[in-house]
Amino acid sequence: MNDRLQALRNKMLGRSLQGMIITNPINIKYLTKIDAEGILLLTRKENIFITDSRYIEDVSSIITPFDEIVVDDQKNISKDDYENFFLFCENVGFEEKYLTYSDYKEYIRKYKINSFVEAGELITTLRMIKDDEEIANIKKACEITDQCFNMLKNYIRPGLTEKQIAKRIKNFFQENSEGESFDTIVASGENSSKPHAVPTDRVIRKNDIITIDMGCKINGYCSDMTRTIFIGEPTEEQKTIYNLVLDNQKKVLNEIREGQNIKTLAKSVESDFNVNNQTLIHGLGHGVGLEIHEAPSINMKNENLLKENMVITDEPGIYLAGSFGVRIEDTVLVTKQGCITLTESNKECIIL
Amino acid sequence: MNDRLQALRNKMLGRSLQGMIITNPINIKYLTKIDAEGILLLTRKENIFITDSRYIEDVSSIITPFDEIVVDDQKNISKDDYENFFLFCENVGFEEKYLTYSDYKEYIRKYKINSFVEAGELITTLRMIKDDEEIANIKKACEITDQCFNMLKNYIRPGLTEKQIAKRIKNFFQENSEGESFDTIVASGENSSKPHAVPTDRVIRKNDIITIDMGCKINGYCSDMTRTIFIGEPTEEQKTIYNLVLDNQKKVLNEIREGQNIKTLAKSVESDFNVNNQTLIHGLGHGVGLEIHEAPSINMKNENLLKENMVITDEPGIYLAGSFGVRIEDTVLVTKQGCITLTESNKECIIL
Repeated sequence: MNDRLQALRNKMLGRSLQGMIITNPINIKYLTKIDAEGILLLTRKENIFITDSRYIEDVSSIITPFDEIVVDDQKNISKDDYENFFLFCENVGFEEKYLTYSDYKEYIRKYKINSFVEAGELITTLRMIKDDEEIANIKKACEITDQCFNMLKNYIRPGLTEKQIAKRIKNFFQENSEGESFDTIVASGENSSKPHAVPTDRVIRKNDIITIDMGCKINGYCSDMTRTIFIGEPTEEQKTIYNLVLDNQKKVLNEIREGQNIKTLAKSVESDFNVNNQTLIHGLGHGVGLEIHEAPSINMKNENLLKENMVITDEPGIYLAGSFGVRIEDTVLVTKQGCITLTESNKECIIL
Repeated sequence: MNDRLQALRNKMLGRSLQGMIITNPINIKYLTKIDAEGILLLTRKENIFITDSRYIEDVSSIITPFDEIVVDDQKNISKDDYENFFLFCENVGFEEKYLTYSDYKEYIRKYKINSFVEAGELITTLRMIKDDEEIANIKKACEITDQCFNMLKNYIRPGLTEKQIAKRIKNFFQENSEGESFDTIVASGENSSKPHAVPTDRVIRKNDIITIDMGCKINGYCSDMTRTIFIGEPTEEQKTIYNLVLDNQKKVLNEIREGQNIKTLAKSVESDFNVNNQTLIHGLGHGVGLEIHEAPSINMKNENLLKENMVITDEPGIYLAGSFGVRIEDTVLVTKQGCITLTESNKECIIL
């Protein structure tokens, strides 16, 4: 059986789950590499992927005998088959943050399930720790993000709109990767004070500050990077805020390592911001993988410790309402001794 | 209060629901025109949209006093506020096909709900019947789809790939509407035998058959049309199958009217196909609106009757595995006496 399915089965044993129904397509892709509509059943004896005639051929070409996955066309599965899949299973797990209430009730009936148990956490926990192949994909996505930023340094100039810059980024990622990993943020002037600004028709002018938050995908894996740049000399206030954010971003990079308490990381930024009369209004970061936002959340509520081979972002920001904002973000790989920064674009104050 | 919210409140009375929590963004857009992240609460006394600072300004500019919707920033709402929203409500409704199991449980706790009741159907039923504004939007989307097909008749030629044609369609819709309402299908030669084919690098050649299934969006409302065309003279077998599909598609158009039994429509196509040694392997059609597939499903399991101002598709198809397929589809408006075909592209055998 492939390593990821085997690891999940081991975790299921620890929770006394004899079966599991997996419906979130991203989890199915993670566990099997299958990228098709369907449902993955882990029964006592088998791993079964149920799909329809559109996908049978594709799916069969992706999996190997080593995966130990049986592929079935749903039209060949009878009512009795469904009732027999989990016949001797006391507890069957499901993804509580994905399954709708309607499907939850339907599955209990259709599969005659005794005890249907919330178990999405098992897969979330597996996905937090990246293997070599996953790291290679994220690394590649980060490299292309750096290349995009290099391109932008020559492209951005007064007269362009935020939307034009965002379009240029989208095109770059479409040409050089599987496309954007999320909707690019290009927020200029006073718009930069909104952490989740959507690109507008605002025209870039001299002395603007611009925050660009972008990322792309390689084999489904995401990158995420933010840089704040200046068109012409920044004001003293902008320099002060920029350096406060940058110093904290770097301080966190120095503190990230296996065993580090996540809460402590966020608290230390919050404290330093407060001392300087600022606040940290959003999380300090998040896990990155097949989804742009995944576990672990890097914030003050998370009591867990960092582990080797987690991939997370470090993205402090300060937003002065109606005036301007600064955010600086890298995607990094947690190691035993520290972290490796996967997005490597220059983040010293860049003036175009 | 706006008509749609009022209609929903009337339906809630009939189901003894004193409150409702609406989280599906498409339903929120339908009921309020708000297109933003947030939750809509219908309490005993108020309609409340809870969002965050990113959207407050936008949302406030969209709603009018007539809507009677209170907009709140989630950061101003306390634990007690949440517990008080449904204080004297015996039954509170939710959208069982949208809410996850995890949120279902969380909401019961957070809002202290006595009896949380599956009520998504109330909104589904409302959305089936389109008002004048909705019909105008779908009509416009269908017109642009016809224009796209006109463009394609001059564009498609041997040497192009399926992907190139699909890209051209996507660009046309991006320039002339809000973009595609679903991933365009361009299936040529033997690929046309797959009802849900994804465009490939297959090159169009002389004597190919090509099925194109496409649609666009206007103000969020979708169109949906399929045409099967020929590069050069079709074979006798192709002509026979084409005419069998076309005759049935037209027959259904003649039978659509308020009061028509949906099951009967599908059964009559199935019967005629069977007489001719063919089968109807997918539904005959579906509702179209803010979603490309919505209620009512037009198939043999649906015992309901058509109603005036439903917008549905009529799309019979025949697929000869490994050889070729034919599907012909229009989007139509149900009227008291019959139906109005909103997609008007020529569907007599088109030879390019």
